Amino acid sequence: MDNFEFYSPTEFVFGRERENDCGRFVKKYGGKKVLIHYGGGSAVKSGLLDRVKASLDAEGIAYVCLGGVKPNPRDTLVYEGIDLCKKEGIDFILSVGGGSCIDSAKAIAIGVPYDGDFWDFYGKGKAIEKALPVGTVLTIAAAGSEGSPSSVITKEDGMLKRGTGSDLIRPKFSILNPQLTCTLPAYQTACGATDIMAHVFERYFTNTSEVEVTDRLCEAILLTMVKEVPRVIENPDNYEARANIMWAGTVAHNDIVGVGRSQDWNSHNIEHELSGLYDVAHGAGLAVVMPAWMEFVYKHNVMRFAQMAVRIFGCQMNFENPEATALEGIYCFRRFLREIGMPINFEELGAKEEDIPVLVEKLGLGDGLTWGFVRLSSKDVAEIYMNAVRAKL
Amino acid sequence: MDNFEFYSPTEFVFGRERENDCGRFVKKYGGKKVLIHYGGGSAVKSGLLDRVKASLDAEGIAYVCLGGVKPNPRDTLVYEGIDLCKKEGIDFILSVGGGSCIDSAKAIAIGVPYDGDFWDFYGKGKAIEKALPVGTVLTIAAAGSEGSPSSVITKEDGMLKRGTGSDLIRPKFSILNPQLTCTLPAYQTACGATDIMAHVFERYFTNTSEVEVTDRLCEAILLTMVKEVPRVIENPDNYEARANIMWAGTVAHNDIVGVGRSQDWNSHNIEHELSGLYDVAHGAGLAVVMPAWMEFVYKHNVMRFAQMAVRIFGCQMNFENPEATALEGIYCFRRFLREIGMPINFEELGAKEEDIPVLVEKLGLGDGLTWGFVRLSSKDVAEIYMNAVRAKL
Repeated sequence: MDNFEFYSPTEFVFGRERENDCGRFVKKYGGKKVLIHYGGGSAVKSGLLDRVKASLDAEGIAYVCLGGVKPNPRDTLVYEGIDLCKKEGIDFILSVGGGSCIDSAKAIAIGVPYDGDFWDFYGKGKAIEKALPVGTVLTIAAAGSEGSPSSVITKEDGMLKRGTGSDLIRPKFSILNPQLTCTLPAYQTACGATDIMAHVFERYFTNTSEVEVTDRLCEAILLTMVKEVPRVIENPDNYEARANIMWAGTVAHNDIVGVGRSQDWNSHNIEHELSGLYDVAHGAGLAVVMPAWMEFVYKHNVMRFAQMAVRIFGCQMNFENPEATALEGIYCFRRFLREIGMPINFEELGAKEEDIPVLVEKLGLGDGLTWGFVRLSSKDVAEIYMNAVRAKL
Repeated sequence: MDNFEFYSPTEFVFGRERENDCGRFVKKYGGKKVLIHYGGGSAVKSGLLDRVKASLDAEGIAYVCLGGVKPNPRDTLVYEGIDLCKKEGIDFILSVGGGSCIDSAKAIAIGVPYDGDFWDFYGKGKAIEKALPVGTVLTIAAAGSEGSPSSVITKEDGMLKRGTGSDLIRPKFSILNPQLTCTLPAYQTACGATDIMAHVFERYFTNTSEVEVTDRLCEAILLTMVKEVPRVIENPDNYEARANIMWAGTVAHNDIVGVGRSQDWNSHNIEHELSGLYDVAHGAGLAVVMPAWMEFVYKHNVMRFAQMAVRIFGCQMNFENPEATALEGIYCFRRFLREIGMPINFEELGAKEEDIPVLVEKLGLGDGLTWGFVRLSSKDVAEIYMNAVRAKL
């Protein structure tokens, strides 16, 4: 097991109607004037925003609102948020929405106490030294941003998608009410579920051996998803299944399922170019990329893929031919994605084979290699995209 | 799933030689004058204490030392520690030892800023309002106190064992170096492992249904233990196995494997009277009590015990007779405990059947019932002790 540090100080507040507690938690973490940051009209129409405001009012906490966060959140709104916060003297950012909204809130939190351009911290390796405190009221189980130290923003000029991370932008608290996810369309639910599973798989495929505890924790989350996601696709109002998925989504990405060993993250990076270029949902892109990546790399460690097949998808181990079991596991994963309504190839996603050179170019590897389970060249990435073009069941 | 809050702000610092970082972390969390609290001579002889002191010296942090913590830590040493801290103006308690040492350190941390008797907080429900910060350098994987909000102390007068809990006594940081556990005798290693497994089982046996994610996380830890513990009993120097067990021990008790549902804890309470009366290791007592408790309660939910048998001990499900599978699971658990060198009945533990009335009396239920998976009367507890008297393989 590699040496590691694990730190997850976010206070998670889970369950029915917990958004009514958010004023209390903003107060606990020192917020006196809050930016409520949200997405589209659903938080308004559902009455969620009103409940959040009422909860802040009850504690005598002032606030201003900034809506309009889109999926693949843009730098333009972040700049707007930073200006607004500076003008209004905001000392706490409260995100009411999904992962995009949280990532945008984190970017604003970084930008307010910084004199330069917040984009300096994204994909450029500049270390974050200060940030406003962030809290979240989560409305979709997916990104895990509610418990993570990371944020991904898209630069509108060129649709460049880049990330940053620091313990300073871990949310102080995150309110997780599974009821809020019951009104999500099936497609968005499935996109979120795919993202959650991908967060675990990026950690499951490691080159560090003998870390049984992390393996088993990964499998715990994946087994939960395999059981619960079809139940919410079947019945969107199934609170228990929604609750399992929501908590699994948080645990999948606060790194407890990743400690003590190397991780991968190539599928995420390869996907980011797809959702950057076509503005498709990140989860949908992952459904197309991840099995295609698995097909490309499985020979690097056949037994690990066989383990996935047996332990997560319940395949019988083929002891005479472990490779057959490995491939069966990848097939099962893709079939699962199809069954929950995800695209599984370029065509279904709305991506084009002829754009592959552009996608590879934007990834910016040049003649270099990625890090990860298998280090990939630009040519390898092109082949993974081709696997995704050809994918079928 | 029940509403819950999950908060685990401790920074875990894991791996080889990490005790050399402890000065840095004491500084990070504001310690200027430290009480180094430790147990017997092993921390001295092994050179661990010297490395800890050197690490504090390197940061210019002053310290005083107080050793002598025993298993089932006593109130008498806590009083001594509180007096010493007040006299020396201590502002940070650093535990260098196992769970007993941490629990004693937490008790001192509570007692220093409190004007009355620290025992007021133990088993009497008085809420903790203030505590000095605590850090730990862990030397045995067992109690989970390094990431928990709880502390158990034994009052020497009457050997009364009582607990308390608060987020205020969660360690700020915990340094977990599996190397430090390699010199532990096999018996202590197995006692610790039993305690870890018991912490999970206390959460696994719940009356809240459909919390798949917590079930699977419990099973992840238990599967890890079933695999790794025999490996360290076989080869005490197996770093990888030690590392898996050490991290499993922390995860088993920071409550991530318990959220969203009712828990039990009757086995722990029933055991506390044994280790209180006979001054035996808590883990050894649990090895005797927990399977005896299982035999008494399994009919309350046969399928849950069958799930344990199948998912954790790899039994084949007997679909015609699930009760047979449930009993097979309990048998497997007891056999596992025997194989790692634990006592499985009163005689092997050094407990006496004729003391059962005293044990039941000290538990103090009177005509009442416990809480938990199955609510137990004094008569039920006596029967569980009798199961433990009669236990064999």
